[in-house]
Amino acid sequence: MMSDVKPDGRYSERLLMGPGPSNVSARVREAIARPLLGHLDPDFLSLMSEIQELLRQVFLTSNRLTLPVSGTGSAGMEAALVNFLEPDDSVLVGVHGVFGQRMAEVARRCRARVEVVEAPFGQPLDLDELRSAARKSNPRVVAVVHAETSTGVLTPLEPVRRICDETGSLLLVDAVTSLAGLPLRIDDWGLDIAYSGTQKCLSCPPGLAPLTVSQRAAERLANRKSRVQSWYLDLSMVQNYWGSERTYHHTAPISMNYALLAALQEAVEEGLEERWRRHERNHLALVAGIEAMGLRMYVQPKFRLWSLNTVTIPEGVDDERVRARLLRDFNLEIGGGLGSLKGRVWRVGLMGESSRMRNVLYFLHGLERALAAEGFHCPPGGGVQAAATS
Amino acid sequence: MMSDVKPDGRYSERLLMGPGPSNVSARVREAIARPLLGHLDPDFLSLMSEIQELLRQVFLTSNRLTLPVSGTGSAGMEAALVNFLEPDDSVLVGVHGVFGQRMAEVARRCRARVEVVEAPFGQPLDLDELRSAARKSNPRVVAVVHAETSTGVLTPLEPVRRICDETGSLLLVDAVTSLAGLPLRIDDWGLDIAYSGTQKCLSCPPGLAPLTVSQRAAERLANRKSRVQSWYLDLSMVQNYWGSERTYHHTAPISMNYALLAALQEAVEEGLEERWRRHERNHLALVAGIEAMGLRMYVQPKFRLWSLNTVTIPEGVDDERVRARLLRDFNLEIGGGLGSLKGRVWRVGLMGESSRMRNVLYFLHGLERALAAEGFHCPPGGGVQAAATS
Repeated sequence: MMSDVKPDGRYSERLLMGPGPSNVSARVREAIARPLLGHLDPDFLSLMSEIQELLRQVFLTSNRLTLPVSGTGSAGMEAALVNFLEPDDSVLVGVHGVFGQRMAEVARRCRARVEVVEAPFGQPLDLDELRSAARKSNPRVVAVVHAETSTGVLTPLEPVRRICDETGSLLLVDAVTSLAGLPLRIDDWGLDIAYSGTQKCLSCPPGLAPLTVSQRAAERLANRKSRVQSWYLDLSMVQNYWGSERTYHHTAPISMNYALLAALQEAVEEGLEERWRRHERNHLALVAGIEAMGLRMYVQPKFRLWSLNTVTIPEGVDDERVRARLLRDFNLEIGGGLGSLKGRVWRVGLMGESSRMRNVLYFLHGLERALAAEGFHCPPGGGVQAAATS
Repeated sequence: MMSDVKPDGRYSERLLMGPGPSNVSARVREAIARPLLGHLDPDFLSLMSEIQELLRQVFLTSNRLTLPVSGTGSAGMEAALVNFLEPDDSVLVGVHGVFGQRMAEVARRCRARVEVVEAPFGQPLDLDELRSAARKSNPRVVAVVHAETSTGVLTPLEPVRRICDETGSLLLVDAVTSLAGLPLRIDDWGLDIAYSGTQKCLSCPPGLAPLTVSQRAAERLANRKSRVQSWYLDLSMVQNYWGSERTYHHTAPISMNYALLAALQEAVEEGLEERWRRHERNHLALVAGIEAMGLRMYVQPKFRLWSLNTVTIPEGVDDERVRARLLRDFNLEIGGGLGSLKGRVWRVGLMGESSRMRNVLYFLHGLERALAAEGFHCPPGGGVQAAATS
């Protein structure tokens, strides 16, 4: 049987192998359905403390100011930028994908002076260029995307930290698609501000944005000359709710925090390093399968994300038709390209619960069939076999 | 038995009679726990259309631009203000509670010229003052709180609309604690921008902010001279995801939208007017009980909210001790006062699922016991009896 669609036409649970959300475990789904507590209930306050402690564990940090922002990943991005930029501050942004572009755009809306260092979508940033630009503009903040969800490209952060040390800049990092899926070490690497999303390698529904802030950056926040332009995302107030004062700011998304707690518990129980290795193994299996099918990965090996795999769409194959077929016949979602990569790549997520060998095999099987329908024939079962023996 | 705490020390579901969140039905909890779909999945896109259609029904509007903002009520407030104010625009804000203060503060952060008309917490706005102020400053936007959650005071909106008609101002309304709990008629009353929260009279967990925008206000948005300072809340982009284009902006909080759909279905199945009447009936029963106990409501009858009841704390009674006792012995949450009303009132929510006669009776019973422990003795059973016969 080639598909998992049930005979009555109703779908079983979708297999989510796009750029996020990823699949969510039964335990997280049970957690999100729990009866509500008030946002100032002592039981909820103690749950908040647990969340913060577990967030520190997955971020590998002792930062006091570590909390989930009450919005999706882009709200985390905005919180990171509006709190640490003031009008006319200089900020240097590495742009080689949609999320770098977005950071630059959000920074402009903070009325900061924004410089960008660009690389083509699918390529890594040129660190020499980044260093020269930083030396020239002496930015208050250097902002890079650790794991570009739009291209599948990794930015190694330790070299960027060394650049920031030269110029005394704060290092701000988009860790949306890396947190809990690949090595990210906030304290060891000296990252000042990092945000993520819940719906990627943490396998929690979207709706919260984990954020962590170093002591150095927290001091900068405390010494701002102007008010943060966003009231909702103003960390100088939000931290009083998540801190020992527990002062009401806005009503926390209660159910989402239940889900996040369960997802964090699962990540920590698995073990962070073991979880990274699982993401690596399944990524390598996917690559082996893709290449055995005669397809190509879009990103050079050294800079590939384990969580988000960009596959070049072969000549003559219709992007949307293949994705629609995977969805309809295999109940399986993958993502299309964004921005300049639209129609040129597929984005195959292997994040959190979705990063499983059975999903790799099933995807390769489905892709082989979908490509055959497009007239693109791979060695039968070759992808699956290569992945299974990788 | 005076309490519902289980013998093993674990609590049954908390009875939420504070300022929100309110209790959530089993149907909504089942919905929020559903397996995830991707935010561009055709099944999710059709669910979004259903949500929008039902939101129009509960807002009593045909506004095309009607959608849930991806954050809690305060994110809805910020979205309402940042999108419709530009730097140096004049805005007039009615302030007689914490949420009016918050609107003024958010508007200042938009660099608008903010005028306020103030009334003491617990009092209604003086409409003559509002009219004079509007005539003087000719504001682009007049902003008022329909149902002040911090004080329990209603602002009648039709007179405010007439003031706005004189000055050609857009009317912006905080409907957080009124939507689906008391009469709110967006189109009939000519409200231009209104936002709410999900965790009040809709009885959905917190995490989304329903928002609706009139055609006139949407045109103003389209003709802005400056970019909206918040990228996350920029409706000119968000509306392309919720509109027919379905262009990706940010990942929608999928599970929260499942919950909202179920909550909206429940509200519409009950019937909006019937739901308002239920809120009114239970409010009147509560008032009868409170007064029979020798206590006083803080707000004059004409301006009382059905959803949020402020009760004056009697002389010599300790606010926090009573609330802690209700929580511990009765598993029942009510709210304390905010701002200048801290320690002076209790806020008793009767919102959505929580607005039930059985809750009114149980609360009055618990309050009688908690007051007795404070040395404040009411006629035994008098509150419960008066409520039951109201």
